[in-house]
Amino acid sequence: MDEQAKKTALRMIPYGLYVLGTKDGDRVTASTINWLTQVSFKPPLIAMGIKTDTEGFQHLKNAGDFALSILGAGQKDMAFAFFKPTEPDGDAINGHRFETLATGAPVFLDAPAWVEGKVTDIVERGDHGVVVAEVTGAGVRRESPTLTLSECGVFYGG
Amino acid sequence: MDEQAKKTALRMIPYGLYVLGTKDGDRVTASTINWLTQVSFKPPLIAMGIKTDTEGFQHLKNAGDFALSILGAGQKDMAFAFFKPTEPDGDAINGHRFETLATGAPVFLDAPAWVEGKVTDIVERGDHGVVVAEVTGAGVRRESPTLTLSECGVFYGG
Repeated sequence: MDEQAKKTALRMIPYGLYVLGTKDGDRVTASTINWLTQVSFKPPLIAMGIKTDTEGFQHLKNAGDFALSILGAGQKDMAFAFFKPTEPDGDAINGHRFETLATGAPVFLDAPAWVEGKVTDIVERGDHGVVVAEVTGAGVRRESPTLTLSECGVFYGG
Repeated sequence: MDEQAKKTALRMIPYGLYVLGTKDGDRVTASTINWLTQVSFKPPLIAMGIKTDTEGFQHLKNAGDFALSILGAGQKDMAFAFFKPTEPDGDAINGHRFETLATGAPVFLDAPAWVEGKVTDIVERGDHGVVVAEVTGAGVRRESPTLTLSECGVFYGG
């Protein structure tokens, strides 16, 4: 395989940015992800690629509940805040305030929209696991275009 | 669940457009898809949501080989050509010429880039199946931004 062509071709896939909030027992965590797509209308399913050596992935395996805060255009700083390890401090993580809803996982107040869900299947075959989940709740706080990986000027893929 | 919020939130996920070419025995087919994300670097895996009542999905289940032609900005007509049933005619399908490479699945000449792959896992839980596949080949014909669902002015999600 032409490795350079593989990298170039896979980097042509457009991505949005999302903060994945998870909860396992009393512990919550949050991390920025971009490998996400819807995969069914009925039931409403999404699939995410999640790094297997992370606390978030362990939470998804153990508890299955999560929230995704969908970031809006201009929220690059918020995306980058959750590329680093998270440290909950009261009702904030890495300086960003959150609330908890049906799943108990953190939903960030500044994000224009969010969904909550429950893991249904995990395929573990690579350095990231394929996490399939049913959407169980959603909310929209304001209208906004979605923050894209392209707007952030970085690649995660290839 | 707030159904309108679910629709709005899920429609915030940005998508590119791809022509999925499949082959099963002597039969080839092609269809436009958008539910696609990378899900692992090593090995290079992607996940796609594919409508289960389609010939393409049956090919993926039976044979496992496929090609994805990544459409470029401005190729909306080509995307729409493969929303309808496909009719191979020599080296063209629905008026668009293709070649076959390692997998035997159609790779379209006008697309700026392509990947070929082999299905590794399928999760069947909704109206679309989650098809996980390893990328086994790739090529780039020219540099181009990717055609997006947003550029086409349509939604497929929510």
